[in-house]
Amino acid sequence: MKKYNKKDSCSYALGATLTIEMLEHKIEYAKRVYFHSTLERNETVLKIEEVCRKNNIPIIQSDKVFRVLSEKENCYIIGEFQKFESKLSKDKNHIVLVNPSNSGNLGTIIRSMVGFGIYDLAIIKPAVDIFDLKTIRASMGAIFNIRFSYFDSFSDYSKEYKNNYYPFMLQAKEKLALTKFKTPFSLIFGNEATGLPKEFLNIGESVIISHSKNIDSLNLTIAASIAIYESTKNNFNNR
Amino acid sequence: MKKYNKKDSCSYALGATLTIEMLEHKIEYAKRVYFHSTLERNETVLKIEEVCRKNNIPIIQSDKVFRVLSEKENCYIIGEFQKFESKLSKDKNHIVLVNPSNSGNLGTIIRSMVGFGIYDLAIIKPAVDIFDLKTIRASMGAIFNIRFSYFDSFSDYSKEYKNNYYPFMLQAKEKLALTKFKTPFSLIFGNEATGLPKEFLNIGESVIISHSKNIDSLNLTIAASIAIYESTKNNFNNR
Repeated sequence: MKKYNKKDSCSYALGATLTIEMLEHKIEYAKRVYFHSTLERNETVLKIEEVCRKNNIPIIQSDKVFRVLSEKENCYIIGEFQKFESKLSKDKNHIVLVNPSNSGNLGTIIRSMVGFGIYDLAIIKPAVDIFDLKTIRASMGAIFNIRFSYFDSFSDYSKEYKNNYYPFMLQAKEKLALTKFKTPFSLIFGNEATGLPKEFLNIGESVIISHSKNIDSLNLTIAASIAIYESTKNNFNNR
Repeated sequence: MKKYNKKDSCSYALGATLTIEMLEHKIEYAKRVYFHSTLERNETVLKIEEVCRKNNIPIIQSDKVFRVLSEKENCYIIGEFQKFESKLSKDKNHIVLVNPSNSGNLGTIIRSMVGFGIYDLAIIKPAVDIFDLKTIRASMGAIFNIRFSYFDSFSDYSKEYKNNYYPFMLQAKEKLALTKFKTPFSLIFGNEATGLPKEFLNIGESVIISHSKNIDSLNLTIAASIAIYESTKNNFNNR
């Protein structure tokens, strides 16, 4: 047992809530579940035991895995699963993240996507590992609800997926609240520190979330989540 | 020199960007600026030196303070300042955070507030310390742009500030995109894990940001930022 490494073929859902999400949505990838020796039996635990029994997923009691993987957290259940990746859906709205570099941010954006009904995520390399334990935790399990693929470049992505592209950039002219999003769309966001390269101004319709001069930019997770909210609110919710 | 503690009378802006924001907006609270011995002179550094000279703020070269305060970061300038607090403006829009418990979240929300032109923040105790170094960093310096006060309870706040109250709650009926915000307003948000207590359903007009059943809730910083965006976009920007 060693610390999680992005080259591993498996990753881990830390805690009961994440483990349940994993079992519910990705049972075919579940390898085993670890229980801590001090775990107290409650409804959630019984549910996990039942799901594991029915699906022949071993439950292993071991405290060592908790010391290695979860460090300081109050974590008594860990779900181990085989990593997965899946083709994006061609007729659906997508989120495209170009070179995301922060694991927690990636997870938070996935949580917002699922919150507003977008289930397809393209990640352009170089990029953080979507199976980093911090990403899984920040997604609150929403990662088990989405389809996602990594691409070597945006052009690799765009060859395959002909959505209406909306790159979000500080240099754009079209304001978010005035943008009429044509479905299926792809909302495209750049790296936390550098944003999207200028050439994205020539791709699709670039959009800006106007803000006061007293900040340089919005936080990436905030910008992406506001854009997702605004682009989905008419057809999905909040009306 | 010891690690920052919330009981200290001073706090610190880590890095050149935060130090400049502090000097620009809160020069009257600036106590001293520390330079690391490996700091390279550039325009920003010259600007800081000039501001300090003009305002009699000592510049101290010391590497120890960096080891104590900034740990792993690439940080070569630290601005020390006296803590401040200020009365909120009565005729302006406010953000009210009830029992926020995460320092980074508090800073990110402050960045979004300033981004969308809200400059008054009420914090209801118990709550994290707004001068925690993580809060200051997550705010990207926006903390030096706002007025804020701590209150022992929401009723202490509401006795003094008679804004139109909009508590954000999962149990609310009014949907965000349909809400007509009457100014001056106060957008009210609960704790990260527990949200607002039920009695807030009887205060002002409660609002929900509708989301899919595939997540339990939105991240607090995301919910607050979307609400701030939506409530300000007509009069401030994005139109």
